[in-house]
Amino acid sequence: MSPDAATDAATAPSIITAEGAGPHQTDVTIIGAGPCGLFAVFELGLLDLKCHLVDILDRPGGQCAELYPEKPIYDIPAVPVCTGQELTDRLMEQVAPFSPVFHLSQMAEKLEKLEDGTWRLTTDTGTVIDSKVIVIAAGGGSFVPKKPPIPGIDAYEGSSVFYAVRKMEQFRGKKLIVAGGGDSALDWVLNLQPLAESVTLVHRRDEFRAAPDSVNKMRALVAEKKMTLEIAQISGLEGENGQLTGVVFKDKERGEWSVPCDMLLPFYGLTMKLGPVAEFGLNLEQNLIPVDTEKFETSTSGIFAIGDINTYPGKLKLILSGFHEAALMSQAAVRIVHPDKKIRFQYTTSSTDLQQKLGVA
Amino acid sequence: MSPDAATDAATAPSIITAEGAGPHQTDVTIIGAGPCGLFAVFELGLLDLKCHLVDILDRPGGQCAELYPEKPIYDIPAVPVCTGQELTDRLMEQVAPFSPVFHLSQMAEKLEKLEDGTWRLTTDTGTVIDSKVIVIAAGGGSFVPKKPPIPGIDAYEGSSVFYAVRKMEQFRGKKLIVAGGGDSALDWVLNLQPLAESVTLVHRRDEFRAAPDSVNKMRALVAEKKMTLEIAQISGLEGENGQLTGVVFKDKERGEWSVPCDMLLPFYGLTMKLGPVAEFGLNLEQNLIPVDTEKFETSTSGIFAIGDINTYPGKLKLILSGFHEAALMSQAAVRIVHPDKKIRFQYTTSSTDLQQKLGVA
Repeated sequence: MSPDAATDAATAPSIITAEGAGPHQTDVTIIGAGPCGLFAVFELGLLDLKCHLVDILDRPGGQCAELYPEKPIYDIPAVPVCTGQELTDRLMEQVAPFSPVFHLSQMAEKLEKLEDGTWRLTTDTGTVIDSKVIVIAAGGGSFVPKKPPIPGIDAYEGSSVFYAVRKMEQFRGKKLIVAGGGDSALDWVLNLQPLAESVTLVHRRDEFRAAPDSVNKMRALVAEKKMTLEIAQISGLEGENGQLTGVVFKDKERGEWSVPCDMLLPFYGLTMKLGPVAEFGLNLEQNLIPVDTEKFETSTSGIFAIGDINTYPGKLKLILSGFHEAALMSQAAVRIVHPDKKIRFQYTTSSTDLQQKLGVA
Repeated sequence: MSPDAATDAATAPSIITAEGAGPHQTDVTIIGAGPCGLFAVFELGLLDLKCHLVDILDRPGGQCAELYPEKPIYDIPAVPVCTGQELTDRLMEQVAPFSPVFHLSQMAEKLEKLEDGTWRLTTDTGTVIDSKVIVIAAGGGSFVPKKPPIPGIDAYEGSSVFYAVRKMEQFRGKKLIVAGGGDSALDWVLNLQPLAESVTLVHRRDEFRAAPDSVNKMRALVAEKKMTLEIAQISGLEGENGQLTGVVFKDKERGEWSVPCDMLLPFYGLTMKLGPVAEFGLNLEQNLIPVDTEKFETSTSGIFAIGDINTYPGKLKLILSGFHEAALMSQAAVRIVHPDKKIRFQYTTSSTDLQQKLGVA
């Protein structure tokens, strides 16, 4: 969610992000660009199916890249140790020959069936993707920002309160208050400071989890009086009709005081919710999607679920199980996309056809 | 099957080979030391179960190491490319913390249930292993040597005709004929020549699939008259009561002639057979073992089957599927070995307990 990561994602050669709202046409739409969604691109690609992926995060990798990019994982078969980010990088390398198209920083919001049987997926930013097959690889659900417990904050969301920055221009010339002590808060302070009228960073204590370099830069800006740092808590909001005019800070010694503000950006971390997938009309069991173990198809034909979000007898929430599920799902998906095509099961070790698809033959 | 490989296997630090015939006691006996058998060691090890493995080959790796050690595999998740040997090496590194014990160059031959419910497995070399759980990870079955179509060869097998070298001393001072043009034939010619009375290599044409270096060494020995090379076919055997006295060679131009011989070693490659596993009393479907998809257990409680040898709806003969099957099987296996123990599902990324088992915490 940091601007640095967004820049990395946009410039990495292997990430093709979609342009425009669509409707985009593809064979398979994958909801979730974590390890299972990525490996599904590989297995579907071997069968000549093209994929678009939608993810709420601003880069591929899902939980692995978001929650433990630096933490070692030991149970990926034949990979004795790798971090979440390394796992993502390896999978991105593996799927590169199939040129998947990513729709990042948006949430799969609405799924409807068109008259010809095509599924139409619409995201919360208005992107539309049409495909014959939907694969839900959404892990524990969508990462959504943790809301601060400030009374009445709902009334300002989307107009004066923002949990993510989608267009920096929106904040030009405004009086901004950024709340939080992690990388997202610090990165956005540094990125928005040059174009905002004023920036105040508010954090409950004078210690930051963010990268030391970002903290140093922030403190330098404070020393140059180019921004303000307040060690305090937010106790209230001022304004009307969805338009903030001020934020009330509170501190044991100093009591309460108000600071003028056009826009408030709280960055208090992310939490996971099943989100709109719960409204897709699928059978659910305790926020999980039951599937068969032959095709990993849901209660609705043409919609599959793989990885941590599905359930079946014996299910383990292991990345390696999601990989297996992706492979079996792909055999069923190709029969939906190409019902008349004869499918031959081939091995990458021996098939020149597959090796050509991978660009190695 | 080459002597070099046997030496490598014996000296590699991570391969613990069993000493003595047993009965050995362990938690789980795994039949087959290919990728799925190896990864089962890892998943069982995370649950504190110790394993012994039996394999007909003289080193771990199964088909991958035997049939395509140098060929690239592209469909192992998060491993964009690796050879069969590299895959084996990576898995051996991953299972090293669990010190699995290998019984190599022998075939699982007999399985019986002892009165206390323990399974007793006996191999064709007389090794006995007792365990509560059996995991069949035998791939396409046992690799068995291809027999040359020589009339009456059966009568000499085991006394004068050998398809593998188990003890080199057996061949000291003997007149040997080695047949074949691959690495096994050439490696054994070079290894047995110093201790045999005489060595003749017979191959149907003057071209060899073996490593060029081995071929050069063989030709040097021929030039020094330390061995003989015959370009011919074997048309018959001479001897009685299982003891060879000569082998008859045939060639279009030279007709037929006899060469004195005590022992014949044909190395015509390997073929796969289900072998004695077919006699274990399990349900079979076209030489495959049907299993459920929750525990990957066979029709017999306590006997599991994972990897290419099993079948269930949707089954794909992919290594990655065997990995998934190993993980789910392990959860069932631990409940058989420790019926009263409370099992907690943990992740290597976050569990200090698992990290200690892996030697990284």
